[in-house]
Amino acid sequence: MSSSIQTVGVIGAGVIGASWTALFLAKGLKVIVTDPAPGAEAKLRDYLQEYCSEVPNATVAPGACLKNYTFVEDIEPYLGSLDLIQENGPERLDFKSRLFAQLDAKTPPHILIASSSSGLPSSEFVTGCSNNPSRILIGHPFNPPHLVPLVEVVPHPGTSRDYVTGAYKFYKSLDKEPVVVNQETPGFIANRLQAAICAEAYSLVSRGIVSAEDLDKTVTSGLGLRWALTGPIMTNTLGGGGDFTYFMDHLGPALKSWLDDMAMNQFDLGSEEQVNGLKKNVNGWISQVDLKKVEGNRDLLLANLVKSKLDQTANQ
Amino acid sequence: MSSSIQTVGVIGAGVIGASWTALFLAKGLKVIVTDPAPGAEAKLRDYLQEYCSEVPNATVAPGACLKNYTFVEDIEPYLGSLDLIQENGPERLDFKSRLFAQLDAKTPPHILIASSSSGLPSSEFVTGCSNNPSRILIGHPFNPPHLVPLVEVVPHPGTSRDYVTGAYKFYKSLDKEPVVVNQETPGFIANRLQAAICAEAYSLVSRGIVSAEDLDKTVTSGLGLRWALTGPIMTNTLGGGGDFTYFMDHLGPALKSWLDDMAMNQFDLGSEEQVNGLKKNVNGWISQVDLKKVEGNRDLLLANLVKSKLDQTANQ
Repeated sequence: MSSSIQTVGVIGAGVIGASWTALFLAKGLKVIVTDPAPGAEAKLRDYLQEYCSEVPNATVAPGACLKNYTFVEDIEPYLGSLDLIQENGPERLDFKSRLFAQLDAKTPPHILIASSSSGLPSSEFVTGCSNNPSRILIGHPFNPPHLVPLVEVVPHPGTSRDYVTGAYKFYKSLDKEPVVVNQETPGFIANRLQAAICAEAYSLVSRGIVSAEDLDKTVTSGLGLRWALTGPIMTNTLGGGGDFTYFMDHLGPALKSWLDDMAMNQFDLGSEEQVNGLKKNVNGWISQVDLKKVEGNRDLLLANLVKSKLDQTANQ
Repeated sequence: MSSSIQTVGVIGAGVIGASWTALFLAKGLKVIVTDPAPGAEAKLRDYLQEYCSEVPNATVAPGACLKNYTFVEDIEPYLGSLDLIQENGPERLDFKSRLFAQLDAKTPPHILIASSSSGLPSSEFVTGCSNNPSRILIGHPFNPPHLVPLVEVVPHPGTSRDYVTGAYKFYKSLDKEPVVVNQETPGFIANRLQAAICAEAYSLVSRGIVSAEDLDKTVTSGLGLRWALTGPIMTNTLGGGGDFTYFMDHLGPALKSWLDDMAMNQFDLGSEEQVNGLKKNVNGWISQVDLKKVEGNRDLLLANLVKSKLDQTANQ
């Protein structure tokens, strides 16, 4: 793939596609964007007007961003002039298979095509690609992409290593933090880790051991504060006085005993009764919360936190 | 319990006890502290000199903090004059049982006695308390207590509700975020949630799906950034457009499919071979990392983040 990417094609301008567009523009790229939904063009303009200014360490002023994109009804005539595609269409296999066959056929064969798919692995939808499927992979962002640095780069078995490296470098050049998922695995990495914590959270709340509100507080006032800065493995290591082996030898048995107890008290997502009980419990709390305020507060602190981390890295 | 707490007894001045002492002093309390370890008094002084200044929203200047504590060889003569005890002794049942029998016998019967125990539930070590065991509970902090707001308040079955409320109010008055764990459960809340994520992290890294470094990055650049600000349940709710029921109905099946796959690929903490392989894998990364720098960077951003959250709450 080319190392100089200037024009990105964004396919699908829903929540994820619009946020990618804001990021690309704020980092100095030109964007050709398309979405067949009624009113998509106006919605995108509103979104960009509001959110381009939020991108941490933007290199282009918000006003200028708005001049650097073109919304098109049909992207096909533009496919030959793109340097990279970020696809954000619906998570339907038939849809993505058709779309990727078209994209692969109509774009220059060397350009990277990344899908934001959170569920479908690309091996399932490249089956109709005969031009160069080795340049197709998943670039799964974390919502909203213009703020949260994580991108999971997931090749399919036929993706070339060069494109994995190319995707890594491209996202990194936008101040994203790409991670490489070596094998397609259900839920990739982030959704699995999230499922792990949610399953135990649902169990603790359902069993009445802690309220839903306090469960969340346990994370936002403790675990999550650490995990924003050091991951689970580094947190273990620092907890072991800088020694992961020490941690495992001394805390492994306790960890195992907790996991055994958790296994005996698992929440059953397949049980309608348990799920309904949980919904009722959670909704009793959520109904008293001003969600707009929660979200606004989160976005403000999130942008500051991402910026602080970027600045800390830049100064070292 | 008395609502006006002025003098706190801190028993055990290791990492946790010293950090509690820094917090209590920076928030204007007087502290009587004891620890039988050789050199404990000098170590504590060094710790307080370095860390009292780190406490977010301190009400007492670091220099003044150092005048408000007394290190004593034997705390027994002081027990009658304390308003609250925070105990941080070794996690050994025989030790804690003896200690709590003494504390319960020699303190005024109305004062709260909290243990920082992370493992032993207090029901196990109040068996020798005949004065007033209903004022004994766990107040389990998250390391380091002078920075991380979380305190798990865990009553034993005989703890009076008044003391649970009292502990909650006391910690809250220090800008901590107490959560109430309604029943003694192995690992309380935080360690269970942490075990959940670690188990899947170990599995993914051991299976070669992601490197240890990228596993951690998935958390620090994505999940953890969110969890520092909104917990798992609120994150679900916002992900469902403000509706937890919608989230469960639409994403529950995917969640279940990931959990099923995770169950089939569980890491076995009881397998020496798997544990050794994981240690080798993780140590290959950690050996290249400057841990002092990681820790320093974390503490700096952690203090800023805690302060930003306190300020945001105060301004609303």
